[in-house]
Amino acid sequence: MNTKILLALALIIVIACSAIFVGLQYQADSVIPADKDTLFQLAAFNTFSTGKYAGLMPYNELEKHGDFGIGTLEGLDGEMIALDGEFYHIPSSGPPVKVEPTQTAPYATVTYFEADRTYNVAGFNYTQLKSYLDGQLDTSKDVIYAIKLSGTYEYAQTRSPQKQIEPYPNLTQALKTQAVFNLSQFAGTAVGFWFPASMDGVDYAGYHIHLITDDRTAGGHLLDCIISNATVEVDIINSYRLVLP
Amino acid sequence: MNTKILLALALIIVIACSAIFVGLQYQADSVIPADKDTLFQLAAFNTFSTGKYAGLMPYNELEKHGDFGIGTLEGLDGEMIALDGEFYHIPSSGPPVKVEPTQTAPYATVTYFEADRTYNVAGFNYTQLKSYLDGQLDTSKDVIYAIKLSGTYEYAQTRSPQKQIEPYPNLTQALKTQAVFNLSQFAGTAVGFWFPASMDGVDYAGYHIHLITDDRTAGGHLLDCIISNATVEVDIINSYRLVLP
Repeated sequence: MNTKILLALALIIVIACSAIFVGLQYQADSVIPADKDTLFQLAAFNTFSTGKYAGLMPYNELEKHGDFGIGTLEGLDGEMIALDGEFYHIPSSGPPVKVEPTQTAPYATVTYFEADRTYNVAGFNYTQLKSYLDGQLDTSKDVIYAIKLSGTYEYAQTRSPQKQIEPYPNLTQALKTQAVFNLSQFAGTAVGFWFPASMDGVDYAGYHIHLITDDRTAGGHLLDCIISNATVEVDIINSYRLVLP
Repeated sequence: MNTKILLALALIIVIACSAIFVGLQYQADSVIPADKDTLFQLAAFNTFSTGKYAGLMPYNELEKHGDFGIGTLEGLDGEMIALDGEFYHIPSSGPPVKVEPTQTAPYATVTYFEADRTYNVAGFNYTQLKSYLDGQLDTSKDVIYAIKLSGTYEYAQTRSPQKQIEPYPNLTQALKTQAVFNLSQFAGTAVGFWFPASMDGVDYAGYHIHLITDDRTAGGHLLDCIISNATVEVDIINSYRLVLP
């Protein structure tokens, strides 16, 4: 075989090899969109809530399963909110800080947020917001709704639990010493989920929403609010993955 | 650039390209084992049991998620048992038949079975078997146990529900007309799962086992048994995927 033939053969192999590479890359990518419509949950809620607050997964692992979600940190140390791939810790002392990659979660629910529906709301308190969403969404259906609420608030009341020490009390006991924050006149984003009744236990049925201000100075688990004007985006999720640690 | 340099460059690209190919193949393969240790569930049990018996997924799709498991067919038409990649329908009329690929399931739980533990049992009835397994397995832990029981039986009582017609009654009502089979002196395999208390609702807590005889002439949902001699294999599963149709 002369050099020219060898060269031609080598080039053919390069082209074939590139085609395989592109094919595999497509295959690898095609795994991600399916996974992106999945709610990933670390630990069953009812087990966590008995006082299982030991860290089970580092945040640099958790963030591979979503860019949006809620949870807490080892020891029930405050609230966690994930928004656009940024994970924040809202401790009981108040001001949010970025979660360190090696910090761990005992419980979290995350997904890749992609809005399927959008609504505009104004003047609602939290009860009115939930009633409004109950009317818009099919709450008789066995699906999970991820909810993102971006806008301006006249008022919000949030909470953050104090970090617990072992032996860990159950969630009801632990929340007796929670910090409660009253926020007024701010822009912010709320992130959370609605779970169907059939999932009560692994998670809990109904709405569970955390909030952070746009200036990242305050936030927490949403207890009440008065919305001035906000956009509600909803991601309809019908695939659920639970990791039982 | 002369031909020799071109040839050398081409060969370097081929080698680099092959390395990437091997790397991607490893990545692609590594997705499969993780998925193989997942319990895949179609529909939440508590919703299914209210009378949601419409077919939600064809069996040729379901079988992509496991080679082992249990379920039923559209209309609560009998019991389904999957063993070594073969899916059987055990109708209320008795003799098992292979499930057709286009037949659909309203509810099913499947996995790829890989034994983590093995036990030998003899002389147990179903209650004694469950007590024995409760003692061997950590039932305080939030994991799912897939259970495979192969051996000889002195006796077994199984059931299979009659196919329902719309409007579908709930499961309790529907099972009032179930067929009950009494089998004696046979070799067979039982297939099923144990779910932790935290998962009651999406599935139900405790043991749920179906059976088929080695000669494939009888089977059903296991109600009782007397085991002559059997091997119990257990697959410990800590990843759970629920599809909410």
